[in-house]
Amino acid sequence: MRTSIATVSLSGSLTEKLTAASRAGFDGVEIFENDLLASPLTPEEIRARCEDLGLTIDLYQPMRDIEAVPEEEFARNLRRARHKFELMRRLGADTVLVCSSVSPLGIDDDALAAEQLSRLADLARDSGVRVAYEALAWGRHVSTYDHAWRIVETAGHSALGTCLDSFHILSRGSDPKGIADIPGEKIFFLQLADAPLLAMDVLQWSRHYRCFPGQGGFDVAGLVQHVLSTGYDGPLSLEVFNDVFRQAEAGPTAVDARRSLLVLQEEVGVAAPPAPVVPTGVAFAELVTPDAEPVQALLRALGFARTARHRSKPVHLWQQGEARLLVNTGPAVRRDGTQLAAIGLEFPDPPAAARRAEALLAPVLPRRRALEDAPLDAVAAPDGTELFFCATDRPELPNWRADFEETGDAEQIAGVTRIDHLALVQPWHHFDEATLFHSSVLGLRAQESVDVADPYGLMRSRAVTNDDAGIRIALSVGAAPTDDTVHAQHIALATDDVVAAARRFVEAGGRLLPIPANYYDDLAARFEFADGELETYRELGILYDRDAHGEFRHCYTRTVGRVFFELVQRDGYRGYGAQNAPVRLAAQHIVKGLTGG
Amino acid sequence: MRTSIATVSLSGSLTEKLTAASRAGFDGVEIFENDLLASPLTPEEIRARCEDLGLTIDLYQPMRDIEAVPEEEFARNLRRARHKFELMRRLGADTVLVCSSVSPLGIDDDALAAEQLSRLADLARDSGVRVAYEALAWGRHVSTYDHAWRIVETAGHSALGTCLDSFHILSRGSDPKGIADIPGEKIFFLQLADAPLLAMDVLQWSRHYRCFPGQGGFDVAGLVQHVLSTGYDGPLSLEVFNDVFRQAEAGPTAVDARRSLLVLQEEVGVAAPPAPVVPTGVAFAELVTPDAEPVQALLRALGFARTARHRSKPVHLWQQGEARLLVNTGPAVRRDGTQLAAIGLEFPDPPAAARRAEALLAPVLPRRRALEDAPLDAVAAPDGTELFFCATDRPELPNWRADFEETGDAEQIAGVTRIDHLALVQPWHHFDEATLFHSSVLGLRAQESVDVADPYGLMRSRAVTNDDAGIRIALSVGAAPTDDTVHAQHIALATDDVVAAARRFVEAGGRLLPIPANYYDDLAARFEFADGELETYRELGILYDRDAHGEFRHCYTRTVGRVFFELVQRDGYRGYGAQNAPVRLAAQHIVKGLTGG
Repeated sequence: MRTSIATVSLSGSLTEKLTAASRAGFDGVEIFENDLLASPLTPEEIRARCEDLGLTIDLYQPMRDIEAVPEEEFARNLRRARHKFELMRRLGADTVLVCSSVSPLGIDDDALAAEQLSRLADLARDSGVRVAYEALAWGRHVSTYDHAWRIVETAGHSALGTCLDSFHILSRGSDPKGIADIPGEKIFFLQLADAPLLAMDVLQWSRHYRCFPGQGGFDVAGLVQHVLSTGYDGPLSLEVFNDVFRQAEAGPTAVDARRSLLVLQEEVGVAAPPAPVVPTGVAFAELVTPDAEPVQALLRALGFARTARHRSKPVHLWQQGEARLLVNTGPAVRRDGTQLAAIGLEFPDPPAAARRAEALLAPVLPRRRALEDAPLDAVAAPDGTELFFCATDRPELPNWRADFEETGDAEQIAGVTRIDHLALVQPWHHFDEATLFHSSVLGLRAQESVDVADPYGLMRSRAVTNDDAGIRIALSVGAAPTDDTVHAQHIALATDDVVAAARRFVEAGGRLLPIPANYYDDLAARFEFADGELETYRELGILYDRDAHGEFRHCYTRTVGRVFFELVQRDGYRGYGAQNAPVRLAAQHIVKGLTGG
Repeated sequence: MRTSIATVSLSGSLTEKLTAASRAGFDGVEIFENDLLASPLTPEEIRARCEDLGLTIDLYQPMRDIEAVPEEEFARNLRRARHKFELMRRLGADTVLVCSSVSPLGIDDDALAAEQLSRLADLARDSGVRVAYEALAWGRHVSTYDHAWRIVETAGHSALGTCLDSFHILSRGSDPKGIADIPGEKIFFLQLADAPLLAMDVLQWSRHYRCFPGQGGFDVAGLVQHVLSTGYDGPLSLEVFNDVFRQAEAGPTAVDARRSLLVLQEEVGVAAPPAPVVPTGVAFAELVTPDAEPVQALLRALGFARTARHRSKPVHLWQQGEARLLVNTGPAVRRDGTQLAAIGLEFPDPPAAARRAEALLAPVLPRRRALEDAPLDAVAAPDGTELFFCATDRPELPNWRADFEETGDAEQIAGVTRIDHLALVQPWHHFDEATLFHSSVLGLRAQESVDVADPYGLMRSRAVTNDDAGIRIALSVGAAPTDDTVHAQHIALATDDVVAAARRFVEAGGRLLPIPANYYDDLAARFEFADGELETYRELGILYDRDAHGEFRHCYTRTVGRVFFELVQRDGYRGYGAQNAPVRLAAQHIVKGLTGG
């Protein structure tokens, strides 16, 4: 099936948009009139540019408030249409979108609408153009797809069909089942957009909050199924008005858009990328650092031992239980300071997982390896984190650990059993993209999004996990792009006894994040604790939470570079301590202020 | 009347918030529990800090989901309350807010609610605390102020009263008239917030979009009138949850907040700052530049003559008709490049206008003048633009023009008659503040806000004018703080014949912003023009618009530093060409790309 994207979904000049759409693999574009008006290229030059880029121009959108108006007004509309059809001839576009009128001049008269649309279609046919009539959700008299279709059916004109738009249909709560009754050849176009489920004015919702399919709350795939059942064979086209996309770079947005359509196509059975392979756990997390000493001191205090070194690279493996951390002192190319740069994900079938990632447009990273190294595929997540497709100590598969030789350092035991979760801060413009990436490329399940108050802004946070929570990644994003609070990534380490682990850490010279005394007074008001329990938490800086499934105790190390560690003891608890995050963030601001860092 | 502000309305740490509230002149604060929990100060230290800052702690907000719950749950709530009342004793706060329950455990039983609130009030009285019960707009069983009041009345307890919140009342469309029936001494607290009129989920609306009174669409003053009629003598307290304020600096937000309350107090007759004095026109606009030559060349081409020079400063007066521009080559302190740094506003009574500005907390600028200069008051607008309070050539008043001596340069005539409007780009966090500043301090009237699509983001724009449009200022703001498109300020010059003025400008060597040919093809489709008219516009780069009142023709110069000029011919038209702004912005991006500037 052909795929298309409306230029309004991307930012920049028309030529920037066309280039981004082509590079992401779209077959065509809808050209939004404002983009054309603002372009210094003539229609012929735009047509040639599209041809060079391998793009068809599937739709042009210049017409509003056309139908069911007084005759004098309609004459003016026809005059305008004549100009636009001539423009479309120059542009090489053969389908024009006509949205249902919102004009105060509009008359509630379906017969008049059909008659005028039919006259418009006469004019269109003479210019080799087809008219696709669409119901806007806030149309004055026509606001539902079945109403628009009845008018098209009444007109009975070969150059007049309907355009369906998932946002306009689903935002009104219309039942898309009725689509199946429309003959496929009369559906001239299909526009797709998702949206978060917000109870708000539909016009504002549409203009600012649309998103790509799979990023919102609509059943877009279900709607597409109904459309496909009609025999519709036009493109699947994305038309997404979104304030964030308007500012983000066009290139990554186009890739995000194309990925969302690939997933949709898979869901409705018209594309079959390699099947998802879900990771079962974290093989390793890799820290890149220009100065290993502070990181190593922290890891030693946490009870990690430097058990192995890479045979050919300046990378050490630190281990404790099933928690494995790589410390890479090679050139940290992308960023300054200590960073969580890569994650090794444990897969049942790593090459199959990599094939799916590549098919879903994850940027494949070059293998920088020595001859004897185990072959290891990797892609970049939207935030730039490198994701490695790993198997650990499984005889039938290449083993990344074989690239390391033992140092002989005894493994310490301080109670850390595994990596509980990884918390990754996303660039502002790529939060929804990151969620879709992790759910579609890696087959992880996205939890509900939660708001977390930081003293200097609101953060949004959303976790992705596999079914048995063997892997958990918490994605977060600041409230706005200039959030100058540098929020750090963090690695949460699981322990069965956080009090013992915290004590050992402190005794080994580690420093935990100090938590304000007021927090513990509040805990005392909210919960009942065993004798001395709260005093221990207060002394060490351990935070506490509880959900329907169990209790949660956790504490934080100081930050090194852009990374800190968390020790977590979850006794059935399923969350991430979001309730305590504002206290933690405020405490980190205080420490940052004290150290000036 | 005392004024107060909730700490949640400001950003930063608790001590940053308290300092900002005190500096802006508030008498007290409501402390939001999260701010206290995250603070390293003990309650006693917070109390002492407030005393030092001259702030009372008027309210504490720790309690949720208290009332109308099963007895076992209520026992837990009382236990929690005991802890919190002890905390309030240490804090020196005597009123606690209890919002109506949203708990799924809540029972729809007013008698039970009254009985349990009464028991809570017993406990409170023993600790010297009063309980203020408030209906949340999304409360599970109690969501209206009159319902909350009936429960309080039923309880009949001296330590139990009600708290009224303008957002919760007005967002539900409740009629505030009924407030007058509540005895004033039973209204324990009054929280004020405005909000834009959005049709959206009330919880989201409340948590993210509240604003200060006068910045939204609610009749907050009307509600306050009803409350005052009861004899209420507690504070007017602002409680505003707003995503933008969470990120903005606390200091300016607190001033903006305090100004909104001053205006509200004036409106309801409990404060009488000096009456508004509305400006009648623009005396001058002042450009500050490190390199006068490009600006002077532009002004000469526009037909301005350098008619006078300042007696003691490196400032020249350029004039044409009633349009006066100062070009200041003194040190441009605040910004780089050529800037629109100051505006002289013509007032019937400049000193009276300055007195009002100062009373409404406009930052008064030091008079940096020579001994012989005319006394000229000035304040800073929220975007840093200096506003001078001027009289021009009026014998009874000090004349700013007397500071200038004639150069003898003949005034040129190129058709510019006056400054039509000034367009000022606002810092992201201060758009609503700017609107309130211009309407309250200067007595200008704010028009509707409009969205304008830029290729790299959405802009918001809002004009403020006086009644006869003798002065028009268009305020605009980008979609997000990192909008790296540097949007320029501009000065629109009125002419009776834009074609002639544009031609003269081009013949004098000026360069107008090139407008894409596609724009003119669209004009041809939309409007009918006289023979040759459109060709002239196309040749020169003149844009066209029409509203119910008349026609509008306008064109733009290239940008110098951060300023450009517009020539406008308005024949009855009342707008600002917002329809054409996307084309203009795209054209400016193209020119910027070509020149790399």
